[in-house]
Amino acid sequence: MSMEYRYKHPHPAVTTDIVVFTISDGALKLLLIKRGQEPYKGTWALPGGFLEPNEDLSQCAQRELQEETRLQNIYLEQLYTFGNPERDPRERVVSVAYYALVPIMDNLPVAGSDATAVSWYPMDKLPPLAFDHVEIVNLAQKRLLSKLNYTSIAFQLLPETFTLSEVQTVYEIVRNEKLDKRNFRKQITKLGLLEDTGELRRNGSHRPARLYRAVCRNKVQLID
Amino acid sequence: MSMEYRYKHPHPAVTTDIVVFTISDGALKLLLIKRGQEPYKGTWALPGGFLEPNEDLSQCAQRELQEETRLQNIYLEQLYTFGNPERDPRERVVSVAYYALVPIMDNLPVAGSDATAVSWYPMDKLPPLAFDHVEIVNLAQKRLLSKLNYTSIAFQLLPETFTLSEVQTVYEIVRNEKLDKRNFRKQITKLGLLEDTGELRRNGSHRPARLYRAVCRNKVQLID
Repeated sequence: MSMEYRYKHPHPAVTTDIVVFTISDGALKLLLIKRGQEPYKGTWALPGGFLEPNEDLSQCAQRELQEETRLQNIYLEQLYTFGNPERDPRERVVSVAYYALVPIMDNLPVAGSDATAVSWYPMDKLPPLAFDHVEIVNLAQKRLLSKLNYTSIAFQLLPETFTLSEVQTVYEIVRNEKLDKRNFRKQITKLGLLEDTGELRRNGSHRPARLYRAVCRNKVQLID
Repeated sequence: MSMEYRYKHPHPAVTTDIVVFTISDGALKLLLIKRGQEPYKGTWALPGGFLEPNEDLSQCAQRELQEETRLQNIYLEQLYTFGNPERDPRERVVSVAYYALVPIMDNLPVAGSDATAVSWYPMDKLPPLAFDHVEIVNLAQKRLLSKLNYTSIAFQLLPETFTLSEVQTVYEIVRNEKLDKRNFRKQITKLGLLEDTGELRRNGSHRPARLYRAVCRNKVQLID
């Protein structure tokens, strides 16, 4: 390409940043890494990094997440692209944000690459974040809340099989409000997204709870 | 910034592309420009262009739309960012797509800047499009269709005041299906997004039709 063409169109750097939510200990939690390099060295931030020449945006997000936290094969959805000219002190950086919901994991993620630590933080106790990552996280939370009402997104936060109580807990935690058990069960059943596994889970002296699985985890389904 | 840093992170070009829909003559229509420059010179494409150093992404979209079609002060929403490494023959170009819905306009848009012509094309009669713009348009149409069901997005396609028949026509055209008048009126009224203006519109020998306005054009409202 000609020098004139390149001069006319200065190129910003492009990155991806990844918002990963989970639910554990009754709280909505966010995956954060501690930055090992300037700028914001030592500050908590979303996993993410620069786009490589031959990868698509979603591949970049998968790779960065894997390098920095060892999480892989996560279903990522594009959230929004942030392009404020002042958002990075180094130079102009346009960042394509992705988000994901994952079930509670037995193992903690492991820090790698530019990250010196990795941790799940409860959303109501977030540390100060680098760059405009607070803005990105806020938008992701808003999206999650709104998608909860008309998609099957909540099931991404649950294990393969689950009880209706567990589904209700997810809704209660994300919405931050108590829900009426009878009403909730009626509404969630009406959506037609649940399949009875025929199995029961025993839990001490309680009545055994029926186990369900999601018919389709990523399908968008409108509430009539 | 150091040469090493820039070498490690080759920078793609960044553009915005804008999908503008309207409804006229009973059809959903798309705003297209004819490209005045290579690549794809003479081919129809979405309005759009390169990000300037000091503008935000949405400013870029507004500016390009204005330069190429004279449309301005349109409410644009970010749609999705397209980053396939092969999507532009010149070099790597990451494009942030925006979309908008506008009411039927009395005046045709006017071509300017890199555009040699501008036109509204019915969605079922689109010409071949440059780059991956078919993909962008398809996603925008899908988003529009899905938002129709749980937001007040449809009112963006209508003038300031409108009849319930006109609202129904918008839904019928976007969904591409006939709707039952009684059911539709019941559902749309239930949403609480309409305000009776108290005015009537006379139309020949028909019974005068009540005129409404949207309570809030851009508000996202869930259908209970």
